[in-house]
Formats: sequence, structure tokens, C-alpha cells
Amino acid sequence: MKQYFPRTYGQPLAHFLRTAAINVPEARIITEYPTIRVGIVFSGRQSPGGHNVVWGLYDALKVHDRKNTLFGFVGGTEGLFAQKAMEITEDVLSTYKNQGGYDMLGRTIDQITTAEQVKAVLATCVALNLDGLVIIGGVPSNTDAAQLAETFAEAKCKTKIVGVPVSSNGDLKNQFVETDVGFDTICKVNSQLISNVCVDAMSAEKYYYFVRIMGRQVSHVALECALQSRPNMVIFGEEVASSKLTLLDITKQISNAVQARAEQGKYYGVVLIPEGLVQSIPELYALLKEINGLYKQGVSVDNISTKLSPWASALFEFLPLYMRKEMLLFPESDEAAQLSQIELEKLLSQLVETEINKRMNEGRYKGRKFNAICHFFGYQARGSLPSKFDCDYAYVLGHISCHILASGLNGYIATVTNLKNPINKWRCGAAPLTAMMSVKRSSHGPGTGPLGRPTIHPSPVDLKGKAYELLREDVLGILMNDEYRNPGPIQFEGHGSDEKPMTLCVEDQDYMGRMKELQECINKVKSMVKPGCSQAVLKAALSSMTSVTDVLSILTAPSSPQSYF
Amino acid sequence: MKQYFPRTYGQPLAHFLRTAAINVPEARIITEYPTIRVGIVFSGRQSPGGHNVVWGLYDALKVHDRKNTLFGFVGGTEGLFAQKAMEITEDVLSTYKNQGGYDMLGRTIDQITTAEQVKAVLATCVALNLDGLVIIGGVPSNTDAAQLAETFAEAKCKTKIVGVPVSSNGDLKNQFVETDVGFDTICKVNSQLISNVCVDAMSAEKYYYFVRIMGRQVSHVALECALQSRPNMVIFGEEVASSKLTLLDITKQISNAVQARAEQGKYYGVVLIPEGLVQSIPELYALLKEINGLYKQGVSVDNISTKLSPWASALFEFLPLYMRKEMLLFPESDEAAQLSQIELEKLLSQLVETEINKRMNEGRYKGRKFNAICHFFGYQARGSLPSKFDCDYAYVLGHISCHILASGLNGYIATVTNLKNPINKWRCGAAPLTAMMSVKRSSHGPGTGPLGRPTIHPSPVDLKGKAYELLREDVLGILMNDEYRNPGPIQFEGHGSDEKPMTLCVEDQDYMGRMKELQECINKVKSMVKPGCSQAVLKAALSSMTSVTDVLSILTAPSSPQSYF
Repeated sequence: MKQYFPRTYGQPLAHFLRTAAINVPEARIITEYPTIRVGIVFSGRQSPGGHNVVWGLYDALKVHDRKNTLFGFVGGTEGLFAQKAMEITEDVLSTYKNQGGYDMLGRTIDQITTAEQVKAVLATCVALNLDGLVIIGGVPSNTDAAQLAETFAEAKCKTKIVGVPVSSNGDLKNQFVETDVGFDTICKVNSQLISNVCVDAMSAEKYYYFVRIMGRQVSHVALECALQSRPNMVIFGEEVASSKLTLLDITKQISNAVQARAEQGKYYGVVLIPEGLVQSIPELYALLKEINGLYKQGVSVDNISTKLSPWASALFEFLPLYMRKEMLLFPESDEAAQLSQIELEKLLSQLVETEINKRMNEGRYKGRKFNAICHFFGYQARGSLPSKFDCDYAYVLGHISCHILASGLNGYIATVTNLKNPINKWRCGAAPLTAMMSVKRSSHGPGTGPLGRPTIHPSPVDLKGKAYELLREDVLGILMNDEYRNPGPIQFEGHGSDEKPMTLCVEDQDYMGRMKELQECINKVKSMVKPGCSQAVLKAALSSMTSVTDVLSILTAPSSPQSYF
Repeated sequence: MKQYFPRTYGQPLAHFLRTAAINVPEARIITEYPTIRVGIVFSGRQSPGGHNVVWGLYDALKVHDRKNTLFGFVGGTEGLFAQKAMEITEDVLSTYKNQGGYDMLGRTIDQITTAEQVKAVLATCVALNLDGLVIIGGVPSNTDAAQLAETFAEAKCKTKIVGVPVSSNGDLKNQFVETDVGFDTICKVNSQLISNVCVDAMSAEKYYYFVRIMGRQVSHVALECALQSRPNMVIFGEEVASSKLTLLDITKQISNAVQARAEQGKYYGVVLIPEGLVQSIPELYALLKEINGLYKQGVSVDNISTKLSPWASALFEFLPLYMRKEMLLFPESDEAAQLSQIELEKLLSQLVETEINKRMNEGRYKGRKFNAICHFFGYQARGSLPSKFDCDYAYVLGHISCHILASGLNGYIATVTNLKNPINKWRCGAAPLTAMMSVKRSSHGPGTGPLGRPTIHPSPVDLKGKAYELLREDVLGILMNDEYRNPGPIQFEGHGSDEKPMTLCVEDQDYMGRMKELQECINKVKSMVKPGCSQAVLKAALSSMTSVTDVLSILTAPSSPQSYF
């Protein structure tokens, strides 16, 4: 890491506190805020709440100095490269406060990766004489932000880089970032719709709904929605990858569930399928990888099917026509397949239908015909009005971005921890982007980025985590007894308007809080064991601390089963 | 009409008033409510608010007499035929108040049509000794209710039949019924999602969304959603039918719009397509009719394509594979095609893509490539929690059903008029079902039922109505300037929770109110021109009244351009 980020790796965490609340000796009290010029850009896919980051940053800048200036780049990263900026004013903001989408400024791709792109950004920041550049985006954008920070530091450019975690997939999630702006809204809209089809299924009692939902490679949206709506089944990509389930295994699993329900006279249900699942099913993943490899070799789309290995070719021919076409779509900028276009829910429902019909002919299934209706819930959630939680969270992150710049920090991401508690208990901070990066050894399964260089990786659903356990502890009840739950539409006033993501609330994530507590512990030991203390106290301290370091050495040894997080 | 309904045609309208508010001589004051037994059934597709009709009826029955009993038929009409009933109690109701779906009782088909079915219902009503049967449903169910009422009267069965207008398509709409229970909710959920994709389109600036929405043969849902969200284009089936636009015409119309927007640098937009449109496009309608005819002759699905007329066969071969399969699906119970399954949005987006590519090759279109994403918004709205308006409206209709039965009326539909005003101004009434029936001469275009016998017809969007005009008066602004409107999700408290359908609020529908006013006018004339009045007054009255009847004779003559409504 040090080799890739010599200037920005190893920086400390930052906590922002009210002056009155400061009780640590290392604290720096910022009293002077020089007049600054800041740029802000939407990088990549729109996510509800993005506008409020701009609003929060604008308000914070103007509170400190009316002469501070905020520029928004028009057309996202392309605008950033082309120096297309507009000054953000109260007037510009007025109709975008608490509104969804990125239409105040627009957006293009989520890449600031090539040498040319980085050079263009540097030129823009110099031309506009920017003190700071705030990048609003998800996993790839924040990786790029880390690289920019390093390059700028090397080039002795005064512009400091700040990342803000905004992504509707919930995959930028680690010790420092509890959740992304937009995730709550996306899950609420999708849960509303999933609950609606649950109610619909239960009323008509004649269809299975196969619902595919957005969320890119990982299944956070599916997990949160499953907790909110409790549909009969969810197939998590992370489970499939860890158990190496094949298409046939999954088909059998769903068919068994359909059969078990039929035996209780139930011919309906709801099956939830994260769009990333296709990349977790080993054989489909291998096929996608071959296709991707052939594209890289310059093979044209019309010739790919003839150049596949015999094994992949056989699978390809097995797939229905629509699926073949979708598998052949050109990969996205992050090398992933075009997940939103691949109708896995349709394939699975057809495979289950075939399996059930087969069982029926063999006399093993004695129920009514299997009927499925497929749905893809994607773009209809992404442009939603943000939930109250996302509005607040985004606005606060905008404020924090201003404080990061005022502190002169470079290459940091704005963070709020303790999010599950009321806003007045939220803790504002910042973490160096490089602290969230790692180099992956394997690229298989969900939540993998490019190999080789350090990147922030999309964090997969933790199969040992509390949220997943909460769902799985009643897996049979949920499957058989229609324990559907209906959170209803997003509310802005009254009952339900303060609801937060369940996954956020059950998880025990206060990493930064504990880090701070540990620091306080260490300070306490230091102050209790000062020169002049008794021999006995010193001996006791030394013996205890040695045992602590021994334990930690064992836990952090490379062979340890504990992984990066 | 008289011939088909000798016992139930020609009955008067009924108005329900508080005793204190009664000022008309004909009013009957009901003071005694005999103990009654009532059955209630969900007939056909679930619609948000259905449960509240049951709740309202239950409360009204129990308020008058704790010994009144309400039975719900389990499994909808099938349960009604099979005498599967459960007593509705406070306990049964408790978890279904203000909830969507029909899952408290379930539902099956919306048909009580065949002689056998009618006989079965009669047997059930006799077996359970019912004084009344309340049928919750849309256009077909209320037609069936009228038939049942006549048959029961003929059979001297004591059970009185009451219909309640519940249908998410908004197509049971006429002088007596201002809107259906569920329509408001369905439109709100769909508008929320359409607005979301509008915001999404405007943020990414690279896709056209082609959104097909439910609504059966007519376009009421599309009209309301278009007013709520103002997407760039809507193709109303009623317009297409009245102008006889072909598939090619519609393709050109959309392509022209795409081109005009491209000339302004806009490569995105939202096109709304009501699912019923396919039956309004003349050539597709003709093809569907041929297919339906062949099914009726007993031709199997595999042979239909070979038996088509040369013209229909050419069209069939022109259609993409998925569309052919969908056109061949077996017609629904009302002889309509399986509208929810026919992906017209996909076909139109592909035809537009082909057209734009052609123009590009010919140098007539000079913009970027046309990109479309298709969505079908259907089942995800139908199971929604009902809006406050639908909750209230349904509950009141339930109450009215009880009053209809207490008045001893048979073959009536429960009505509430003046809905656009606050609840304390709502007017409760009942209209004979036969007053809403007619015999159609032509079966072409949207909003047609079977020929020959009197039925209630789905009411099409009125192209001369105020709601349609309101949308069309700014058609160019909506198309070109992205005047998107975002109503947001359904709210249950605070701002927006009292919103009603726009189509309801702009239309001037108070037919029953005017009928009552006219009655009052006539009463006034009668009381002013009593024996003993002066010759001058009598002469003036006679001359004025003669002129009134003259005008009315002209207006109601058969050759008049004024049609049934």
C-alpha cells in the first residue's frame, strides 16, 4: 500500500467534535477558516440524497465565510474533465433540496482512472484555483478519489480530495462507513414494491413472483428488503458463491420449496433474486469471464459464441435465446457484466417450471400447475425522493466535507458513525481513503474488484453477520407460513418517517467509536503509569500490556482465520 | 332493457340523508332495522381498499343490531359457488383494516355468468338464509350483480343484491359512480414510480424509458398518472382508436418526438403506454380478434398461426418472436387479450430504434444513438396499502351497502358523489345497476364489452373531458421541456395525505347532485303553482315549462349527437 500511496497512506482518523466536547490532548481547535474555493462532482450512477450532499457542503461553506465559493461540475466526470462548472447558489439549490436524482448537475461515467482523465482533472482544479474537490460516488469513485489525492500531493497541487459515500447498492461499507447515502431509500422503495407483490400473491393464490432487484455484484439491497418484507425465498449471491451452488442446485432448491408449499395447498409465493446472483453461480460466472476475455482480445460480438471453450459453449447453447443475447452484452466500466440487463429471474422461473413439470410427469409432484410472473425492480427506485434518513445523512456528510477541507486533510472520506442512534448522537469524522483499500488475491465471487493494485472492494453481505442471521433464524417460517411484512411507502411525516435500515440497526458496527475508546484507554494507562509511580503499579501495567500485545500478535498473524475486516 | 330486466329496470335513485337533513316529501325515514344476515364476496382482481368495504359494512351492521351477521366467502366467487363462508368478526377484521390485497378472504375469477354459476349462488344464499349479498368488483362483476338481482327477484329469493365499485382500472365510471375504490392508490403508486424514472432519465440523460402500465382496455390510469407525473409522452388507446392510428403512425409519432428532442440535445425521456393500447391499434386489434375467433372454433394454439387470413398472417410474421407468443395467449374471461402479458412497450421501442437508425443512415437524424429501457408497472401497484382516500371511500361504501339492504333495495350499486369535496360534504346514495347498462352497436376500440345483451361497459377516457384537455393544453411543453412533476410516495399523515385523483377533482361530475337539485326545482314549481294561484302565474309557468320540454325533446331525440353519457 505504502508503495502505491507514499504520500497519503498511513494518515490518522479524524473526529470532528464541538469545541466544548473536546477532552483529548491531541485535539486541534480550528478557529480560522481561510476563504476557499471548492468543486463538487457527481461520479457515476445517481443515488437518492446526492443533492443534499451539495446542499450541506454549500451551507457549511457559507456559514464560515460568505465569500467561500462552491462550483458544481455539469455533466458529472465528463464536465470535470472539460472544465464545465457552474457556481452553486441558493437559487440553483432551491428546487433540489431533499430531491432525488442527480439532475441539478447531471452525471456521466464513474471513472477518473486513465492518466489522461487524471491530468484533465488536475488541469481543471488548477484552472479554477480550487482548494478542494469533493467526489460524490460509490466504490469505484472513491478508489479513484484516493488515486487523485496521491497524484495531486505528488504534483504539489493545492487541491485536497474528499470522497463522500453515495451509492444505492450499499456496497461501500466497512469499519469507517456504516452505510451509503441512497441505500436506505432504494431499500424502502423496493421493499414497498416487494410487499405489494407479496400481498398480491397471497390474494390471488395462483402465481409465484420472481423478483430481481438491483444492487450490482453484492446482495445488501436484497438482504435489507428481505428483512423488511420477508418474501418466501431469497437467493443470496454470497451464499451461492460460498457453497458453490450450480444453476441446477438452485433450481432444485426453489423447486423443493415450491413442492413443499404445494403440499400445504399453497400455489403462490415470492422469490427474491439479487441481480448480482448471475456472477455468483460458478458456471455462469465462468461463461461471463470467457466472454469478457474474448472481448478483451478484440473478438467481435458476432464471433464470441464460436470461440468459447467446449464446456462454456455447451452451457451457452443450453441458455434460452434472450439470455444468450444478454450474456453477450459488452461489460460495464468495472468489468462486471451488464447485470441490470440479464434476466436471471426469467431463466430461473423457466427452469423451475420445467423441473416441476418433470416431477409432475413422474408422479412426484401432485399439485396444480406452476405459474410464475417475473419482475425487475431497478430504475423505478433509483430516482426516488430520498428518505428522511438519507436526506439527513447526506446533508451532514456535506457539512463534514467542508470541515475536512478546513482541516487541510487530503484523500479522506467523510464519515458519520453511530447512525442507528438519533441525529444528536451521530459522530462526525473522516477516514483516509487508503485505509479502506486492499489487494485481493482471488477475483471469484461477489464483491471483487480488479486484481493487482490496491482498491476499495465492494463489501459482500457478511454471512456471519447479525443481519443475515436474523433473517436465517426463521428461514422455514418465512418460506412456509407467509410471514410477510409490509413497511409501506416512504413516509416523510408521522409514523414510520424515522425508520432506518434494519441491517444498520442490528449490526454492531461502531468501529470508529471503539477506536476512540481504545485511544482513551491508552491515554489513561499513560497518565496512570507516569515516572514516579510505584514499582508495583509499573510491574502490573507491564505484565498486563505484554499479555495484550501477545494476544494481538497471535490474532493479527498472517495465518489467522480473521480476514481483513 | 325492460325485456332483459323486467323486475329491476326503472327503479329510482336513492339518496341517504341524516334525518335532520331531510327536506323532501318523498323521503322515507328508516327507524326499524330488522336483524339481517349478509354475505360479502370479492369478485375478480384485487384492488386496494377492498378490505375496508367489508369493515364498513361490518361496522354499519353491528351499529344497528349486534345480532346482524356478516359472512365472507372464502376464495372469492369459487367460494360463493361452493358455499365456503366464514363469519366476519372483529377478530378476523383486526389485521386487515386499511390493508391492501384481498387476502382476508381470497379471490378467484370475476364471473358469475353461466346458468350453473347463478344457480349455485342462489343455492348458497338460500342455504345461508341471507338477506343480502354484497359483491365487491369492477365492470364485469357489477354486470353479473345486475343479472343476479333480476334472477333472484324472479325466483322470489329474499336475498337482495348490492354491488360496490372496486376496480383499480377506474373504468367503472359514469353518471352515478365518480371513481372506483383502488383507482386512487394504483395511480399514486404508479405515478411515484413514473416520476422516479423521469428523475432517473433526466439525471443520466442517456435513456428513453418506455413504461407500460396496467389499466385493462381503457386508459384512465395512464391519464391520471400523466397528470401526476407529466412524462414526455403518453399514447392513449382512446386517441389511437378515434384517429385510427396504425403501428407505423405511432412509431413515426414517437420517432418524431425523439428527433425533436435530439435537436435540442436531449437524448432521454419517458413514454407512457397503457396496456390496453394494443387493442386500440387497428391492425393488432384485428389480429387479436382473428386469434380469438380461431380459439372459439376450437383451433389449438399450435395451429392458429397457419389458419390466419393472409393479411393477419403477414402482420403476425412481422412481429418479433416474443410478441407472437404473447398475442397467442388464451383470451381472458372477458374475451380481452392477456394485456398484462403483451410487451407492447418492447415492440414500440424496437420499432422506434429501427426508425431512428434508418433516419440516421439517411442523414435525417443527426443525434446520438437511441437507447431505450422498458418497464411494466403492474402487479407491484395492485397489492399496495390503500391511500387515505381509498380507505375512506371504501369504508363509506361498506356503510352504504348496509343502508341499501336496510331499505330493502335490490340490484343497486352503492355510490358516493361529491367526492372531490371534504368527507363531510360527501353524498351517499345508490343507483340501480340497470341504469348504468346499455347495448353497444360496435365492438371496436377500447371500452367495449360483449355485444347483444345489456351490460355495463368499461367507460373510456373522455377525449372531450376536462382532465384530458388539461393534459393536452400543454402537450408541447410537456414533450420538450421536461416539466416533470413528482407527487412522491403515498403519505398517510401530514402533507399530501389528503390528495385525491386529479381527474376526479377537475371533472365536473355531480350528476346525482344535479338530479336532486332538479327534483327540488320541480317540487318548488309544484308548490308555487298550486290551485288558487293567479292566472298570470299559471300562464307564465306553463309557457316556461313548455319551452323546457321542447328543448329537452330536441336534445333527447335519437338522432341527437349527444350520446348515452
